[in-house]
Amino acid sequence: MTRKNPFFEIKTARGGGKTSKGCNIRLFGCSFESKYKDMITEKHFEEFINFAHKVGDANLTVCSSGNLSWRIGNEVLISGTGSWVPEITEDKVAVLNLEDGRMLNGVRPSMEHGFHLGVLRERKDVDVVLHFQSPYATAIACRKVMPATFNFTAEVPCHVGDSIPMVPYYRPGSEELAKGVTQAMKEHNSIFLAKHGQVVCGKDFAQAFERAMFMEMACRIAVLNGDNLNPFTDEQVQEINKVFLGK
Amino acid sequence: MTRKNPFFEIKTARGGGKTSKGCNIRLFGCSFESKYKDMITEKHFEEFINFAHKVGDANLTVCSSGNLSWRIGNEVLISGTGSWVPEITEDKVAVLNLEDGRMLNGVRPSMEHGFHLGVLRERKDVDVVLHFQSPYATAIACRKVMPATFNFTAEVPCHVGDSIPMVPYYRPGSEELAKGVTQAMKEHNSIFLAKHGQVVCGKDFAQAFERAMFMEMACRIAVLNGDNLNPFTDEQVQEINKVFLGK
Repeated sequence: MTRKNPFFEIKTARGGGKTSKGCNIRLFGCSFESKYKDMITEKHFEEFINFAHKVGDANLTVCSSGNLSWRIGNEVLISGTGSWVPEITEDKVAVLNLEDGRMLNGVRPSMEHGFHLGVLRERKDVDVVLHFQSPYATAIACRKVMPATFNFTAEVPCHVGDSIPMVPYYRPGSEELAKGVTQAMKEHNSIFLAKHGQVVCGKDFAQAFERAMFMEMACRIAVLNGDNLNPFTDEQVQEINKVFLGK
Repeated sequence: MTRKNPFFEIKTARGGGKTSKGCNIRLFGCSFESKYKDMITEKHFEEFINFAHKVGDANLTVCSSGNLSWRIGNEVLISGTGSWVPEITEDKVAVLNLEDGRMLNGVRPSMEHGFHLGVLRERKDVDVVLHFQSPYATAIACRKVMPATFNFTAEVPCHVGDSIPMVPYYRPGSEELAKGVTQAMKEHNSIFLAKHGQVVCGKDFAQAFERAMFMEMACRIAVLNGDNLNPFTDEQVQEINKVFLGK
């Protein structure tokens, strides 16, 4: 808990090495140097923001309804509370300590930081968590009766997962929701949150984005076709899993 | 099989005629000269990439789910395996020998190169093949029961085809799928692949793109209207075929 915050020792971009203690580097456009391994740099913020905007451009979420996190070493970039992912700016990106959730740059994180940190702690194989509310997947999340399967095209078992569980409704931002999401994501890469939306994870932005896009495609097929569906047989899913995933 | 690969003799862009053997011209931004007729040039790569991005901008496919090929003489430009057509870059564009499918520039082609080459070999009148997964057409491809016809507006018989067959499901990337698509495209310009997506061909990019866009329009009409449809009569299709296509 006494760890020195790398964000608090800053060299200003044009200041010739002048050190400004406690400066909010996001607001004042400073550059900085971390003394720590896997340090977060300006490039990470830029990449995070570019990806967040890409999520918005793809209509995966609108306004303040989604959130995004990215693990860098022992720290996590995460969209700030109340921020709009599709048009987020640097001053709305929070940095948290992964282990204890401490705020490291003075920006308050999304109220869903509980499940973001939970998933990143449990899943060493993923670095990105995206909570979104795409049109058709959110329609599915708000149904009383779910489709029996989403295995309509090979992209689903290959990228989204051959089953997509639904986490029961818990109040947004609650500890119960954080626990439910963390638990479900131990065994899945893509999940629904009842009366809420979706969460996907990935080893990087591209993988998380692709999972989100193909999950939305599968849900669109389900919604548009109603009962007129022709999903894969179990044998077809097994063949796809074997050939493409080596399962 | 002993044919010299035109990609292996390269004049660097600023190298004053210096020849670099085996250089991956895509990665190092070299220009090159082919000794062969109908040679592939930098301009072809640029045009291919521009068209691929246009396919993405039109929401005809997302992420890694579609692929594209273009015949130049006896060779074929084709999107690389795992590449994302909507944002493809030069280093992800493969070049194949049309006759035997040999890789000519070290980039592995889409796993669907089998049907791309098959269609280009069978159809001397087309140079472009596009496999896509547009929202409404993919919904149709995943139905148990198909609409009786897609002839809702004149664009369908004129550009897409007055019948659009459905190739049965075969595993993506399989030889059976390559054969099924090649066979169906002998007599059609636009087809569905069950539980998968669509394929269109064209004499050039514009024609393939127009077919894809009008196929999506027809499928959107079918999906949005359900049973409340008012398609052309056979006589109306015949009149359109006669007046516009000279059939």
